[in-house]
Amino acid sequence: MKKNYTIRTRIWVDEKEGPFLGIGRVVLLEKIKQTGSITNAAKEIKMSYRQAWQLVEDMNQRAEEPLIEKVLGGKNGGGAILTKAGEKAIKSFYALEQKVKKFVANESKKLKF
Amino acid sequence: MKKNYTIRTRIWVDEKEGPFLGIGRVVLLEKIKQTGSITNAAKEIKMSYRQAWQLVEDMNQRAEEPLIEKVLGGKNGGGAILTKAGEKAIKSFYALEQKVKKFVANESKKLKF
Repeated sequence: MKKNYTIRTRIWVDEKEGPFLGIGRVVLLEKIKQTGSITNAAKEIKMSYRQAWQLVEDMNQRAEEPLIEKVLGGKNGGGAILTKAGEKAIKSFYALEQKVKKFVANESKKLKF
Repeated sequence: MKKNYTIRTRIWVDEKEGPFLGIGRVVLLEKIKQTGSITNAAKEIKMSYRQAWQLVEDMNQRAEEPLIEKVLGGKNGGGAILTKAGEKAIKSFYALEQKVKKFVANESKKLKF
């Protein structure tokens, strides 16, 4: 019987030192942008502060320019903001994801099992 | 600082009724081919017989032609063999994976973060 198949994909961007960006990290960046702090962003995605902080450190080190900038002072021990490079990283990730989705959508038309 | 990025991907093929093939299921097919039975294949990949059996049922139903054929009789309650369609499915999955890898390898050259 003739059937129709679709291809699902997931992508991760790695740097020489290790993982750099995946959808989970991109959502963390978006939440930091929305909430203005790593603490609040971590809460929203039910991640420990410690792990969120570690992911931010990794991303900052593996990016060509930091994606997140820590802001000293204020209550809660200061906030964090998404840099221009951070904004660009989010956009680039989604653009890449779209390109891959488009490529596999086209490939899926050729599938026969 | 200039850095180099690489893209990792994972792919899954879905049919209307649900998931059809992913690398885990392809390995199950390969192990059935090697061992001649679902029981032995399940053991090798540390999966319960029940789950392996369910995956085989799903794949057979979602493929245009069955990928695995159950052979009655013999000790251990009979074996299972990979059909021609099963052989083709494994090849098609890896070919698709290679195409996607090639596409993203090319995309990764353009990445800047």
